[in-house]
Amino acid sequence: MSKKDKHHEQVRIALEKDGWIITNDPLVIPVGIRKVNVDLGAERLLAAEKGKEKIAVEIKTFTRTSMIYDFYGALGQFRFYLRALAKTEPDRILFLAVSKDVYDEFFDEAFIREVVELENMKMLVYSIIQEKIEKWIK
Amino acid sequence: MSKKDKHHEQVRIALEKDGWIITNDPLVIPVGIRKVNVDLGAERLLAAEKGKEKIAVEIKTFTRTSMIYDFYGALGQFRFYLRALAKTEPDRILFLAVSKDVYDEFFDEAFIREVVELENMKMLVYSIIQEKIEKWIK
Repeated sequence: MSKKDKHHEQVRIALEKDGWIITNDPLVIPVGIRKVNVDLGAERLLAAEKGKEKIAVEIKTFTRTSMIYDFYGALGQFRFYLRALAKTEPDRILFLAVSKDVYDEFFDEAFIREVVELENMKMLVYSIIQEKIEKWIK
Repeated sequence: MSKKDKHHEQVRIALEKDGWIITNDPLVIPVGIRKVNVDLGAERLLAAEKGKEKIAVEIKTFTRTSMIYDFYGALGQFRFYLRALAKTEPDRILFLAVSKDVYDEFFDEAFIREVVELENMKMLVYSIIQEKIEKWIK
């Protein structure tokens, strides 16, 4: 199992511990792109429900040398999914899931926090070791 | 010279042929991120002027296997630069530069066109062979 798949599993477990029911893994958003396989790549979307709340979770592991480039990828994918969900399932809220160490090392920067807020990037911070959700940033 | 540097040079030439004066190469945006070297990586921003118009150009070469992942990276970087420029130089307009072959193969998809428009992604399409600007998408 690759590192990315492992994080995927840990986020699943963390959500379940928090009372969420995983409804789609992966969640496929039909945006009608012919030439593009949106599901390609390691990061798959998770869909979960808890009571009336419905969420989609983009899991990003930040493995590359430059965290800012990982962030560009995560932000672009987030904005893309946001536009796709707005068309297909407007009541499902999108979250970016990152581990606590990545959050503390990178997302705590003032300008990054500002961009996250301005870009409507809701986040879920998880603990890799404890497999639980540390905090929600809404 | 790497492929990416070559495109950088070709976009420079294409802009100059179109009457632009290159004022900064690279353009460094001071956003005050301590731990992050924003200029890291192959893609550098270009700044140019023509009369009263001021632009910043993000050059993206789409070399990876999955064009959608290249797009996520380009979109995220674009939104980040957009937020950074809004703080430092609000009168400078940001453009994403892509080659005509990439534009024709990927950006012509209906949903991609929609995302580009909704995300305020202005574009400049260049010809690699002729080293000229094919079109501006504003």
